[in-house]
Amino acid sequence: MRLAELSRRSGVSTATIKYYLREGLVPPGRQINTTTAEYDEEHLRRLRLVRAMIQVGRLPVATVREVLGHVDDDSLGRSIRLGAALWALPQVPEPDEDDAYVQAAHEELQLLLDRLGWGNAKALSTLSPAYRSLVVAVAAYRRLGYDWGAEQLTPYAELMHRTAVLDLDNMETRPPGAERVEFAVLGAILNEPALRALHRLAQEEETARRYGFE
Amino acid sequence: MRLAELSRRSGVSTATIKYYLREGLVPPGRQINTTTAEYDEEHLRRLRLVRAMIQVGRLPVATVREVLGHVDDDSLGRSIRLGAALWALPQVPEPDEDDAYVQAAHEELQLLLDRLGWGNAKALSTLSPAYRSLVVAVAAYRRLGYDWGAEQLTPYAELMHRTAVLDLDNMETRPPGAERVEFAVLGAILNEPALRALHRLAQEEETARRYGFE
Repeated sequence: MRLAELSRRSGVSTATIKYYLREGLVPPGRQINTTTAEYDEEHLRRLRLVRAMIQVGRLPVATVREVLGHVDDDSLGRSIRLGAALWALPQVPEPDEDDAYVQAAHEELQLLLDRLGWGNAKALSTLSPAYRSLVVAVAAYRRLGYDWGAEQLTPYAELMHRTAVLDLDNMETRPPGAERVEFAVLGAILNEPALRALHRLAQEEETARRYGFE
Repeated sequence: MRLAELSRRSGVSTATIKYYLREGLVPPGRQINTTTAEYDEEHLRRLRLVRAMIQVGRLPVATVREVLGHVDDDSLGRSIRLGAALWALPQVPEPDEDDAYVQAAHEELQLLLDRLGWGNAKALSTLSPAYRSLVVAVAAYRRLGYDWGAEQLTPYAELMHRTAVLDLDNMETRPPGAERVEFAVLGAILNEPALRALHRLAQEEETARRYGFE
């Protein structure tokens, strides 16, 4: 298809598509002559992903470029490629390892991972941004004087594991390769806000069930 | 306790406490003489909450003031007071109601709420920011060409309801009144990032279980 059709089908203006092409976020089309290029379904899919990352995920262009670099890197194994793409997404601040609350949070989280039998997550824990985010959150609770650790997190972790099983089952309905990694990146951008919203909605439902509209 | 002890026990500097007092985020102490005021456990608890909202939640001071206004408003019923405090937290952009994808998302979500039997959430759906966030997320999926609606969201919603039950069970271990509302606000600020992190960690665990470290 030509640029005009790519624009019509994606809902992205031709000026914006040209900008994404210049920035290398969308691969160039096949040049037919000096002024015309031809695009295919893969360009359309990539364009939609870029738009979701920038408009919905509000990621800076440099981050989008980094995430896509991992999505396209055929030299990486499947789970490393997926991990590298997800790890390039924005993360929370790093924990201060000298802080006593951070050290206590590490101990509680190692205990939690043992208790859950999450051996893989434990093996990755020094590398994983998700693990470090969890350390920051648990340390913040403890600093506020709340007893928050392996005991309190276990039932939440079990529910989140069931959620992750749904995510991967959904992902496996997509063809393997770049499209599957793209779906996982989109899931992190679109499904995380959707889950947060569902969670708050469920809190509203449950609050009204317990207390009515007092 | 005096200002110095309040600072020591909260880990917040006296200069920052004075700033929070001037901004009305922490209520004034009981004045003993012209230069000295006395603070109690309630000041300490409030100070910790303010610090979590500003440092961990990165909320602007004006938002913190609005949330606290609802926490302290005794004229409101229990679930309204909690709702008003949570609804004052930052939210995603509003859906564009003229957009066909947004309209389709509304239809899917009304179907979802019926299917789940979430009558209270359905009654609140025109008011609730969480519902509007969900509309935005579902519309974004559909705009990208993914079939995402009541069918796909039902198992996620059920898991999020079980998560909300845990949240309220935890909240009910706190004394009723302002302290309980504060705990719910903190939950929205600290537990949401913790859940997101647990979810990503569970994805890493499940990915490695299915594909190994390829």
